[in-house]
Amino acid sequence: MERKYAVILGNLGNTRDRFCNGYKENPPSLEMLKRAAKIPHVSGIELVGTWDIRPDNVTEMRHAFEDLGMECVSVIPDLFGDKIYSKGSIASSNAAIRKRAVDHVCSMCDAAAELGCQLINMWPGQDGYDYLLSADYEAERAWLCESVSELAGRYPGIKFSLEYKPKEPRTHSYMARMADTLLLALETGAPNVGVTIDTGHAFVAGEVVGESIVLAKRAGDRLFHMHFNDNHMTTDDDMIVGTVHSVAYLETLYWLDRCGYQGWLSMDQYPYREDAADAIGESILWLRQFEVLLEQHRETIDTLVKRQDPVSTSRFLRSVFAPAREKPMQPVPSMWWV
Amino acid sequence: MERKYAVILGNLGNTRDRFCNGYKENPPSLEMLKRAAKIPHVSGIELVGTWDIRPDNVTEMRHAFEDLGMECVSVIPDLFGDKIYSKGSIASSNAAIRKRAVDHVCSMCDAAAELGCQLINMWPGQDGYDYLLSADYEAERAWLCESVSELAGRYPGIKFSLEYKPKEPRTHSYMARMADTLLLALETGAPNVGVTIDTGHAFVAGEVVGESIVLAKRAGDRLFHMHFNDNHMTTDDDMIVGTVHSVAYLETLYWLDRCGYQGWLSMDQYPYREDAADAIGESILWLRQFEVLLEQHRETIDTLVKRQDPVSTSRFLRSVFAPAREKPMQPVPSMWWV
Amino acid sequence: MERKYAVILGNLGNTRDRFCNGYKENPPSLEMLKRAAKIPHVSGIELVGTWDIRPDNVTEMRHAFEDLGMECVSVIPDLFGDKIYSKGSIASSNAAIRKRAVDHVCSMCDAAAELGCQLINMWPGQDGYDYLLSADYEAERAWLCESVSELAGRYPGIKFSLEYKPKEPRTHSYMARMADTLLLALETGAPNVGVTIDTGHAFVAGEVVGESIVLAKRAGDRLFHMHFNDNHMTTDDDMIVGTVHSVAYLETLYWLDRCGYQGWLSMDQYPYREDAADAIGESILWLRQFEVLLEQHRETIDTLVKRQDPVSTSRFLRSVFAPAREKPMQPVPSMWWV
Amino acid sequence: MERKYAVILGNLGNTRDRFCNGYKENPPSLEMLKRAAKIPHVSGIELVGTWDIRPDNVTEMRHAFEDLGMECVSVIPDLFGDKIYSKGSIASSNAAIRKRAVDHVCSMCDAAAELGCQLINMWPGQDGYDYLLSADYEAERAWLCESVSELAGRYPGIKFSLEYKPKEPRTHSYMARMADTLLLALETGAPNVGVTIDTGHAFVAGEVVGESIVLAKRAGDRLFHMHFNDNHMTTDDDMIVGTVHSVAYLETLYWLDRCGYQGWLSMDQYPYREDAADAIGESILWLRQFEVLLEQHRETIDTLVKRQDPVSTSRFLRSVFAPAREKPMQPVPSMWWV
Repeated sequence: MERKYAVILGNLGNTRDRFCNGYKENPPSLEMLKRAAKIPHVSGIELVGTWDIRPDNVTEMRHAFEDLGMECVSVIPDLFGDKIYSKGSIASSNAAIRKRAVDHVCSMCDAAAELGCQLINMWPGQDGYDYLLSADYEAERAWLCESVSELAGRYPGIKFSLEYKPKEPRTHSYMARMADTLLLALETGAPNVGVTIDTGHAFVAGEVVGESIVLAKRAGDRLFHMHFNDNHMTTDDDMIVGTVHSVAYLETLYWLDRCGYQGWLSMDQYPYREDAADAIGESILWLRQFEVLLEQHRETIDTLVKRQDPVSTSRFLRSVFAPAREKPMQPVPSMWWV
Repeated sequence: MERKYAVILGNLGNTRDRFCNGYKENPPSLEMLKRAAKIPHVSGIELVGTWDIRPDNVTEMRHAFEDLGMECVSVIPDLFGDKIYSKGSIASSNAAIRKRAVDHVCSMCDAAAELGCQLINMWPGQDGYDYLLSADYEAERAWLCESVSELAGRYPGIKFSLEYKPKEPRTHSYMARMADTLLLALETGAPNVGVTIDTGHAFVAGEVVGESIVLAKRAGDRLFHMHFNDNHMTTDDDMIVGTVHSVAYLETLYWLDRCGYQGWLSMDQYPYREDAADAIGESILWLRQFEVLLEQHRETIDTLVKRQDPVSTSRFLRSVFAPAREKPMQPVPSMWWV
Repeated sequence: MERKYAVILGNLGNTRDRFCNGYKENPPSLEMLKRAAKIPHVSGIELVGTWDIRPDNVTEMRHAFEDLGMECVSVIPDLFGDKIYSKGSIASSNAAIRKRAVDHVCSMCDAAAELGCQLINMWPGQDGYDYLLSADYEAERAWLCESVSELAGRYPGIKFSLEYKPKEPRTHSYMARMADTLLLALETGAPNVGVTIDTGHAFVAGEVVGESIVLAKRAGDRLFHMHFNDNHMTTDDDMIVGTVHSVAYLETLYWLDRCGYQGWLSMDQYPYREDAADAIGESILWLRQFEVLLEQHRETIDTLVKRQDPVSTSRFLRSVFAPAREKPMQPVPSMWWV
Repeated sequence: MERKYAVILGNLGNTRDRFCNGYKENPPSLEMLKRAAKIPHVSGIELVGTWDIRPDNVTEMRHAFEDLGMECVSVIPDLFGDKIYSKGSIASSNAAIRKRAVDHVCSMCDAAAELGCQLINMWPGQDGYDYLLSADYEAERAWLCESVSELAGRYPGIKFSLEYKPKEPRTHSYMARMADTLLLALETGAPNVGVTIDTGHAFVAGEVVGESIVLAKRAGDRLFHMHFNDNHMTTDDDMIVGTVHSVAYLETLYWLDRCGYQGWLSMDQYPYREDAADAIGESILWLRQFEVLLEQHRETIDTLVKRQDPVSTSRFLRSVFAPAREKPMQPVPSMWWV
């Protein structure tokens, strides 16, 4: 199976945090699009609503995608960047704000349709809470479910892929982990509601991505989309894949295949201080190397997961992740990799 | 509503860790039972299978319970202490071990019935994995579901309450968090499968207990049992309630009531170096004080969770958790509390 | 001893994160100053360099402080908000950037002097690294030490208080925890280099603040300044004191007194979605209530820390943190606290 | 430089946790010694006081070491396994217990001398606290320093290497992180007091091992010993090196060399459910492969740490950790590695 790689367009733009308002410049969307299309192996793009895609520029973007031979992989409604949603969007306790949020998602569904895209990646980052005894978990979860159900009912041809993340920007998100998001998807009763795994979000949630993939599979093939990045396990650092973990990605690809995942592998990074296209490109190259390992050793891995013997697993991993000491190595020309 | 307090009998026994084999002596079960019954406000006891309760001592234990006026709140099958289960019990990849584990649970169901107890608290602590690429998450989760389904079907009069915990003794447990355990319970299709929250396990899982209670409620009133203790958030320290957190317990009691929880409040501590009965008794006294606050301020809290204003919440918490500076305080006789 | 309370001026301004560029408006510094001065019990203010204080407005600010009867508690050089420092400021591997950073601190020392302020609170948030094998820890730590030494030597009348924080905006900071910052302070050999504890930073670092205070004491009375806020232990949430933890603050005040701390208690919050002055005011009121408890029970606490019996400690904490169940409680008028 | 590999003898024995009293059998020390000596590349052994080495068996052990051609790398006094130390050993508030602990270390110093070993690896795991407001940090740290100073003074020919660990068996240890342990070492004023890094302890402490090595170097070459294992970052899982992290070990070896470390690389694992010798052997083989990478690419890494460009670092890591997709790979015979 040929895997399909994508990037989120905004990842090529400005980066900032609460201390520094901008580590970079923010190029126009079309310019970023051209840059993204040049990243090796990229054939799909995700767009953030209002940032990159609005009713008024849909046609222009469609043409740009056609010209570049890119596919629009998903549209990500902006439920997190507007301060009107500061205390919640589709789960807001304020009915007017909920309606506005749902309406925004609807307009993004229409835009997606025009772009030939059938997936809405929904990350309602502001839907959660910061303090104890300061939120009505029961009512807000009910509204969350109601909003998602309404959207799924109105757009049966669109797949709504819910992206979970345990924290940030709120100290606690309602869609926090794979399993609670699956419960929500199941509760809607709609077949077009599923889940996005962002590998970094899963790490912060204390999950093993391979197991989260299995959970989604068992809940009725609910894994709709994948975001890739790496981190140091406690914060969503959005780093280059493979720079902290390696075994975890090999295992993730194994379980994606075993559970029949057919979707995109999309990079979701936030390269605060790095060249964005280069940093994103690195992640794809790492994943492609892990793919090679998987293709070469799939049967071995099948055996290892059944064998449950970490010593055998270690022996295998050593054999693929680093050169055997005994084998003579060619001298490596210094700095060839620059 | 009068709340009912219980303790796990084994908490009064020896404590140990991998470095020190025993910080205390291990008194006989009957002696611990008498001691437990003297802890103020305790009217229920949980027993661990084979440690405290076996086919050969059921009758003796039943008489002891009757004599002491105690109720047997739950039986906890021992799926964690026997090295035969070192790589899994009811989810083991070894069919013979799975059968043995299921049989053990069955014998504990029979014992429970004889003790007039209708709740099996199931914590399959060894069912999980330690290393990546060393477990077949898909097959083992299927076996886990199969075993629980079989038990629930065989004993329709028993409530099987699944206790989740993210790690220890394995680095990763299959029943790790509220939501994945609910998915499992729902997958069995059995109405008599639910979930136990251990507050400390929830903390380590990054959960807010109040929200976990709501999740169980929304999944069809699946909260069957509660274990209480406190910790420093990263390890299951099994400490005295209230010594690290306070707001969290007030909130927990609020949501228990709001979601109609009718079960026991059972203490599950591991007082490594403390007098066990005293340490457990402290937790109950803390909870009873939080109860008083809740009873006095339930309507206020109702308003606060809807208001979503942490400043108001803080103001309220200050008013109940510490004396106002302005009010004159009576001098406190030194060390009266000893 | 009368404690002195302060706030960081910028805490009253706009808040933002990487997703939302502004949850609030940013009022002019003078307006924020007037608002801050009205927070009950506040008599000191910390200013961030260039944001609030620059060579061109020092005189204006001095007059404003005089008019309001406020004291300038510290000046915080801006070593984190300008993208020129994105890969480091006073520890940058680029000599020109290091010089610029040191020069900026010098200009802030001059400004401080004009404001009658003798403390520079130095938080070089960009001095650290994000990725493994991407920083020369040895060289950069040497430059960090060199820059601090140079500043301390040039301004012997100024106290340089180094504020540590384990992460954010970098995944790893050089001044990460109390003890490594003490090692740095000691290495400079300068008596006017010490440490600032931010309670939230210490929580994220896995520290118990009371113990960190003792470490600073033992290293030669190096605790120069205190920042207060609360969080959920994994991220610098900069929340209202007392809304997550309570025992920890009582303990912190106890150890501050026992180690002879004479400095300010300054609030450092980031009230993303709350009224800033109210949220900061709450923290001060919490601390003042903890103070009352400490004053009433100091001898008891002296005994408890020596006794090393958590049951006794728990009993004491229950007696002060929540009403005894047995005592009759007056009915609390609903919502009086609004 | 030829690196020297060692193991802790007890790692080959029984494993247990607080739930299961034994996952294995505990062979006699001499048998474990023979087994350890057969692990490829092992030439040194660490012994735990009283478990493996006592005044009455020193001669026997010396002969066994000679027969097997093994070197005794360190003796680890047992300050953690005897319940007399449950609330502290060399920092106990009880003078008699402190004396007993110091005397035990002295007897281990004598044993070490007889074995030709000059390093005492000191891990006072019980010296710490569990609950807030239940320990006198100031007094206990003073006793800790006093005991270490006394030992260092009495045995000037012995290197006392202090092993830090943030938690377990206490929720908080006094020797918790590299920097606080360095402060302690410096405070003793003794040149023969240094620090042991256990890589897993450092991970749990949130440290980057490479940076911790630099801290020890800057404090006067205080890194005396190294323990290796891997974990999932939140608990001391004591797993096989390389099964979770890989970059971190390559970086660790780089900084060990750059800081001139000449000591042993000793494996400290706790293979709960694995064949111990095989699991330990794996770690050594991983380290040797990382060594090969380091030897081949040292100059490149020198450049990378100075360059501070994570994209370049990633490119390099990809080139060494996984096969390039483009290069043709030989087919790997299935399961050759078993």
